[in-house]
Amino acid sequence: MSSEESAQFDIWKQIGAERQSVSDHVAREEPLQITVDGTPVAVVMRTPGHDEDLVKGFLLTEGLITSLDDVTRIDLENKQNHAYVFLADDVVLDHARLSRNLFSASSCGICGKASIEAIQQNAPPIESGFKISSDVILGLPDALRAAQEVFSNTGGLHAAALVNADGEILILREDVGRHNAIDKVIGWATEQEIDLTETLLQVSGRVSFEVMQKALVARIPIVSAISAPSSLAVEFARESDQTLIGFLRPPKFNIYSSPERIV
Amino acid sequence: MSSEESAQFDIWKQIGAERQSVSDHVAREEPLQITVDGTPVAVVMRTPGHDEDLVKGFLLTEGLITSLDDVTRIDLENKQNHAYVFLADDVVLDHARLSRNLFSASSCGICGKASIEAIQQNAPPIESGFKISSDVILGLPDALRAAQEVFSNTGGLHAAALVNADGEILILREDVGRHNAIDKVIGWATEQEIDLTETLLQVSGRVSFEVMQKALVARIPIVSAISAPSSLAVEFARESDQTLIGFLRPPKFNIYSSPERIV
Repeated sequence: MSSEESAQFDIWKQIGAERQSVSDHVAREEPLQITVDGTPVAVVMRTPGHDEDLVKGFLLTEGLITSLDDVTRIDLENKQNHAYVFLADDVVLDHARLSRNLFSASSCGICGKASIEAIQQNAPPIESGFKISSDVILGLPDALRAAQEVFSNTGGLHAAALVNADGEILILREDVGRHNAIDKVIGWATEQEIDLTETLLQVSGRVSFEVMQKALVARIPIVSAISAPSSLAVEFARESDQTLIGFLRPPKFNIYSSPERIV
Repeated sequence: MSSEESAQFDIWKQIGAERQSVSDHVAREEPLQITVDGTPVAVVMRTPGHDEDLVKGFLLTEGLITSLDDVTRIDLENKQNHAYVFLADDVVLDHARLSRNLFSASSCGICGKASIEAIQQNAPPIESGFKISSDVILGLPDALRAAQEVFSNTGGLHAAALVNADGEILILREDVGRHNAIDKVIGWATEQEIDLTETLLQVSGRVSFEVMQKALVARIPIVSAISAPSSLAVEFARESDQTLIGFLRPPKFNIYSSPERIV
């Protein structure tokens, strides 16, 4: 049963060497474009529902308005994932505040992209014939944990690692930002001229759409995560022929797309 | 012992009704401004270390360059948290790509702010005399878990809740984005004209600088998290006189700042 907040997918559940088809619920992730008096202000990746509260809270906590009295009306076009905000006549969007944000991109891939179209420009699908065994995958959480020194010290870091077909960790980086850890890994591997089409990207937390997008641009065929993927991550992986693994908790893991790379 | 990747703070550890002073390590979080051929491109909040890899990976995975051959030199000014990127003469920064990002802000508070100064504009410190008992705080993880329906279904959502002095959950929202859940809660509470100076914001995951910033703008005096804070979250909370609680795992939690609000 799909709902506004979760989506249902047919996936594969791997338990040891066994694989079975199951139906699974995944948290929904969709973009919401916020336009204020005709000016696109932000695209946020959010779980649909309570969008008006989200827009009000966003405008307040980002300092774009100082009171809800500043807002006359919010029109939600949910099919288009678009919120149109209209300010009171005597309230002017602080363009000085906005202009500080000129030419900005971000580590989370979405923020800073002021239209929904902009986030959909994809690299072509993955064509790598790279394969990896389920045994190697089941060994990754232990290997990652052993290599994560700062995390055990502070409990506060995301990790990303590149792994080859033998399960060797080629590089591991930790960061307060999930996307930074991935960027550090990809930056290093590109500098080292490592063939990324023959690697798996292991991450410590959840998988959002942006993680899959960064992996696709880098041509990494398999992304594996300890925790849950979002609905958009699954849909993106299926369109891009990326293999997406989630809930990697030995002796089990879920395969959300392109299971033929797991042998 | 502080390092590039972690910082040491004197904090308070609460165990049941007992409180003791201890020294604790926290993952470091600092801004890095990336400037390409003189144009500020992004400020990312990152853990210092491997910054050159981060910048290369960021430029590649965000599509601002297509190959490392496009980059002639990266000068890191670590004291200023600034990376200056110089492109090869025949490579031009894709201004069409950048111009799509005009007027963008973001759900993560930092992305979209193209200078380090811009992130440091603060609201004034909190002056609320609000107090809450450690018993109430120790009951929050159970209360939050009971109220988190989608999470138990999908494992993929962040939660944020507003709590009063009696431990009642006034509102709880879940979202794939941590900051969205907070914005939904603050948007709702502001609309309902709830006095936020008499509330605690409980979040399911970690606490970054941006979480503290959103709470400060909303005038919420106490932020409590199940997991770790970053160094910048702690420093920001201390400057703003916000009470910051982390690692809330009954019968224990850590208090990182303004402990007098916990009785």
